[in-house]
Amino acid sequence: MSLDAKRAVAELKELRALTGDTNGAQRVAWTDTWLKAREWFAGKLAGLPVVHHYDAAGNNWVTLAGQAEKALLIGGHLDSVPNGGWLDGALNVLAGLEILRRISEEFNGRPPVTIRLVDWADEEGARFGRSLLGSSAFAGTASVTADRVRTDRDGTRMEDALRRCGVEMDRFAEATREQRNAAAYIELHIEQGPVLECMGLPLATVLGTKGVERHGLTFHGQEAHSGSTPMNARHDALAAAAKLALEIRGIAGKHRDAVCTMGSVKTYPGIVTAVVGRCEVTLDQRDLDAGVLATMFREAREASKRFAEEERCTVEWSRIWSIEPIAFHPALLDLCDQAIREVAPSGHRMPSGPLHDAAEVSRAGIPTVMMFVQSVGGISHNKIEDTREEHLEMAVTAFDRLASKTIEYLT
Amino acid sequence: MSLDAKRAVAELKELRALTGDTNGAQRVAWTDTWLKAREWFAGKLAGLPVVHHYDAAGNNWVTLAGQAEKALLIGGHLDSVPNGGWLDGALNVLAGLEILRRISEEFNGRPPVTIRLVDWADEEGARFGRSLLGSSAFAGTASVTADRVRTDRDGTRMEDALRRCGVEMDRFAEATREQRNAAAYIELHIEQGPVLECMGLPLATVLGTKGVERHGLTFHGQEAHSGSTPMNARHDALAAAAKLALEIRGIAGKHRDAVCTMGSVKTYPGIVTAVVGRCEVTLDQRDLDAGVLATMFREAREASKRFAEEERCTVEWSRIWSIEPIAFHPALLDLCDQAIREVAPSGHRMPSGPLHDAAEVSRAGIPTVMMFVQSVGGISHNKIEDTREEHLEMAVTAFDRLASKTIEYLT
Repeated sequence: MSLDAKRAVAELKELRALTGDTNGAQRVAWTDTWLKAREWFAGKLAGLPVVHHYDAAGNNWVTLAGQAEKALLIGGHLDSVPNGGWLDGALNVLAGLEILRRISEEFNGRPPVTIRLVDWADEEGARFGRSLLGSSAFAGTASVTADRVRTDRDGTRMEDALRRCGVEMDRFAEATREQRNAAAYIELHIEQGPVLECMGLPLATVLGTKGVERHGLTFHGQEAHSGSTPMNARHDALAAAAKLALEIRGIAGKHRDAVCTMGSVKTYPGIVTAVVGRCEVTLDQRDLDAGVLATMFREAREASKRFAEEERCTVEWSRIWSIEPIAFHPALLDLCDQAIREVAPSGHRMPSGPLHDAAEVSRAGIPTVMMFVQSVGGISHNKIEDTREEHLEMAVTAFDRLASKTIEYLT
Repeated sequence: MSLDAKRAVAELKELRALTGDTNGAQRVAWTDTWLKAREWFAGKLAGLPVVHHYDAAGNNWVTLAGQAEKALLIGGHLDSVPNGGWLDGALNVLAGLEILRRISEEFNGRPPVTIRLVDWADEEGARFGRSLLGSSAFAGTASVTADRVRTDRDGTRMEDALRRCGVEMDRFAEATREQRNAAAYIELHIEQGPVLECMGLPLATVLGTKGVERHGLTFHGQEAHSGSTPMNARHDALAAAAKLALEIRGIAGKHRDAVCTMGSVKTYPGIVTAVVGRCEVTLDQRDLDAGVLATMFREAREASKRFAEEERCTVEWSRIWSIEPIAFHPALLDLCDQAIREVAPSGHRMPSGPLHDAAEVSRAGIPTVMMFVQSVGGISHNKIEDTREEHLEMAVTAFDRLASKTIEYLT
């Protein structure tokens, strides 16, 4: 029995039927539906010569012991956002399972290096607003003190929700033990953007994950009556924000692949008859190059101050979150590109805008690479998320080639 | 006893102490505090040779019968917004009361024409979102069917709240009877804007109330991931809205006194990690000239479509509300200007951006004029609303002169 890419796709559909509804995938981490998905996945391991355990952060490890203890890690996540797509995270896990079967058979249950498939716990952070939870525990970058008191929309504390699933946050640090012998990490993921579709390409090698600067800005002007306040007497906080909303396109546009997004605007008092006295906006900036990211951040700050001044307003910035750019491993990038070129008409290298568990693994110093497969319409985190079936099969095949090449690289 | 402008100011302070708190005036129409204000006002009429009654819409009429049935109407309103100012509306009523006393004394209780002081019911519309309620019933422009089912934030129906105060909405039409013999209407009001303060003038003649075009606009783009969607692949609904927010300043700026305001912006999904897929904004446009208003409206529509197209979005418009410009009576404008010049260093003529009961009275075909007195900082609908005391006294005096000139004009 060789690799059966169609089986991986069939199993993705089986999972969708089991854990989705008319609104999409419902495998939110630490819920019953997520536990059901994991139980279904455990059932798929029957007959494989693997050891299966959960680590202290709830990550699900399937280990096929090899001739060497040195291990190739293959990762994904079964959890989804609410009303999510059928592929985000799950593609990686089921492609990995199929590859595990193929390797086990090819090497009679004992490959040259140890192969470990991991289903990371709570990649999405959908319930408690903390993404990459399991992989950050693995990497030793978890923020347990800050996270344990997070609550979901019903007021349930994160710590209590995890305990219900058998995970004690006090023991998170023990998850770093899984780093032992880890020699490489590979992850397949849907692109979740429109780039590959626009280029007419099925697959890409991911250069790394972009660094992110995420800020909240508040422009302070003067609330005033829309009827009695002449245009030239206004301190219009919205006008300053609107200038920035347009300016950030130029700030990003100077750099290939850089993005700047104003995703939220709130106006106060926010009524039809008042000039906006206070305007709160968010700014999300991303690039793979730390220098570019720093330049974009500085330019946005300067622009915001200039616009505030022009509109006789003031502006305050507060950091919501940031992460540095993470570049994947040069040798693995080349292997990934070779694997893609063996099954697809041509290769392509691109950064990932969204973060992935691979970023945390890479931060732990483990050589890492990711492969992207085209998303239809660039849509994700939505029930209409999709990838053409021939592309899914091509992705499983190319990812399997990458696994083989990485095993060779490690031996 | 001649006119005592200081007494009017003292009575305004008395009313403030009785019906305000640390957050400002609390005389919201159809509440107990408002009823208390009206009861206090009724007490002030003791000893005056007047007839006092409420009409079918709850407007409070104080009539000093004259030698002729032909009547001069002097109007204001005791109701306020929540946490409002001490002068908005109440200044007019208490200046009118002082003038009524002066006229009654001067003419031994029988002036050449009948003088009627009216405290309009619910000018602000603060509780049910329907302003100029009582004056529109007087003018015969009330929208009873649409208004009766309005509810306040606690779910109380407008019809029930009015009934509790002895007003039956079914009988609103009877309030038009008060138009009988009405020959002129004058109203004094704080400016509620910064124009007079900027010009260093205490008083102005109000040319009329600006027409208003009030619309809601929705820009439809495409929600997308802020990390994975390249800048040039976006359909950013916020960008189209931001362009319009800036463009409306140029549209208004071509015309003296015209204003355009974007007071509310709502973004969907409105999160830091998503390009805005839908952006809802409001647009309020005002001018005293109907042609200018129509031009501004057309230009804003055209600009919104152009910007939507540039950003690969679409835009929909829906009218929230509109009213035509209302020009006050030419002869009364001249009388008002003369009255001001008798007590102030110079006169000034300007339109009113905010609407006032005078607009409804003018729509009923009654010759109308308003006088403005300077607002400190242009602030209104706020506890810090204020006017310098010497300006208040000057306003009461000039308004009294206007009353005398109007009586002469009518006889």
